[in-house]
Amino acid sequence: MLTVREDIKVFDCTIRDGGLMNNYHFTDEFVRGVYETCVAAGVDYMEIGKNNSPTLQSPEEYGAWNFCREEDIRRIVGENNTDLKIAVMSDIGRVVKDELLPKSESVVDMVRIATYIHQIPAAIELIEDAHAKGYETTVNIMAISKSFDGELDGVLEQLSKTPVDVIYIADSFGSFYPEQINKLTEKYTKVAKSVGKKVGIHAHNNLQLAFANTLEALIYGTSYIDVTIAGLGRGAGNCSMELLLGFLKNPKYKQLPVLEFIEKHIVPLEKEMDWGYSIPYMITGQLNEHPRSAMKARDEGNTAYTAFYKELITIDE
Amino acid sequence: MLTVREDIKVFDCTIRDGGLMNNYHFTDEFVRGVYETCVAAGVDYMEIGKNNSPTLQSPEEYGAWNFCREEDIRRIVGENNTDLKIAVMSDIGRVVKDELLPKSESVVDMVRIATYIHQIPAAIELIEDAHAKGYETTVNIMAISKSFDGELDGVLEQLSKTPVDVIYIADSFGSFYPEQINKLTEKYTKVAKSVGKKVGIHAHNNLQLAFANTLEALIYGTSYIDVTIAGLGRGAGNCSMELLLGFLKNPKYKQLPVLEFIEKHIVPLEKEMDWGYSIPYMITGQLNEHPRSAMKARDEGNTAYTAFYKELITIDE
Repeated sequence: MLTVREDIKVFDCTIRDGGLMNNYHFTDEFVRGVYETCVAAGVDYMEIGKNNSPTLQSPEEYGAWNFCREEDIRRIVGENNTDLKIAVMSDIGRVVKDELLPKSESVVDMVRIATYIHQIPAAIELIEDAHAKGYETTVNIMAISKSFDGELDGVLEQLSKTPVDVIYIADSFGSFYPEQINKLTEKYTKVAKSVGKKVGIHAHNNLQLAFANTLEALIYGTSYIDVTIAGLGRGAGNCSMELLLGFLKNPKYKQLPVLEFIEKHIVPLEKEMDWGYSIPYMITGQLNEHPRSAMKARDEGNTAYTAFYKELITIDE
Repeated sequence: MLTVREDIKVFDCTIRDGGLMNNYHFTDEFVRGVYETCVAAGVDYMEIGKNNSPTLQSPEEYGAWNFCREEDIRRIVGENNTDLKIAVMSDIGRVVKDELLPKSESVVDMVRIATYIHQIPAAIELIEDAHAKGYETTVNIMAISKSFDGELDGVLEQLSKTPVDVIYIADSFGSFYPEQINKLTEKYTKVAKSVGKKVGIHAHNNLQLAFANTLEALIYGTSYIDVTIAGLGRGAGNCSMELLLGFLKNPKYKQLPVLEFIEKHIVPLEKEMDWGYSIPYMITGQLNEHPRSAMKARDEGNTAYTAFYKELITIDE
């Protein structure tokens, strides 16, 4: 616990995961605040949003950070002459491959491909395209807690043959316990190490385990660690950057800039946006379900928890 | 994860730990609600308060559950003809030994002795007295994250020679990480098993690790598991009963009564009482400090987190 692991990369996804709560309608001031915080805190990567296509999703409905046009990113980061790398996330079916600029024309360093298991062939196309254009790449396999038996082994085998740099364990429903994360870490790192790739972890806080699961993955060999400031993210939110930085002993990481950002930007935001652990998210996490019903309950201020629970456990066979 | 551990005892301390937030001024309806919830949920123990002496603390300042007079307890639980056992906690220096009735005259089943390391001789006196009077006993060694080097080994050695039934790992400042809880569990269970005692865990949620640390202790051999409904407890609160019951696979434990209690009693309470994880508690947890400065900050609605942090890390040598 008192040593420094040089392989660890702290990966901020505040804007990208938090944007799921407000359709990416963050102000420039807020996004610039996250950027400056990441630089000052010594964080390694910042995911500034999604690079979905405006031909497939409406720019009226979604804010700039759902599309991440080059000029929008540069408005915040300029030429980004810092040690912080910039990432964007690609959703299968919502991106247009040809819209991705060559790396030489972009301030973006990394493209992360988010994929469900049934979309893996499409994900591999995007990985190959982004890699060929000069980007670092990750693949984030979502909803694996619903994957059928040995299915995941086949997926990892396929991905190991692609040029992807990092394979992510994504606990989309926040339903895993640390001992399950332990087993998943073993499975992922075994495949990844054999072909010189790294493993990442992206946790959700439905069971108040986002930080604990992140630590479990980290300790057993995961290198890329997704965090968001104050846990800002979809539903129950994510592993908090400030919790992780308090744990890591590498002096390059600084806690104070994160607390400054929270004080200035998160305290007011908490009054108008609702994220983080609560009973409905716990229930969907325990039942290994997507949190959308819990998000609806929170939106409506519905605290009829017993009815909510009974409805979710009703089985029509 | 799919088996049942018969040694596990789910131990509710909602009233006792929650009472630290309101000087034990709970209504009878609330206390009865917790009692009925514990019975319906299949919980094994309920700690109904402290048995401090009204000659040492003022009944004007503190409510009934700081004193737990026999008639007050019976007003809630009657003869307690249920499988739920009733516990009270004794604070060193705040109890008068002779006030403890013989077990034959009391509806209480267990006395828990809370002690700092420097109070161990006084704790042993109370253990011996309670044991001689016919009670089950536990000892909860507080603030061990501040204990000096091998000191704790000597304490455990001393306690192993007493008639105490359960020795508790208490994470008073919410500052331990799971890998530290793992080592503590190994240390405590080694001593306890050699003399036929059990080990317990009492966690706080300063680092969002109360549940994770509880799971870590449980998996590695701890039997008595302290929880509170909705985590209601001092400062950042405790491991939530509803999180633990969702994890345990023993069908004797029921989740629905807990959700009913939360819906009816916790939702309104949350509007007037402030407990649970927040940034000031995270800071005192990371710095291994008592949460009292964080409780003050929360009371005052003080969100100047950077100033709070800077003040705590200032060292006057």
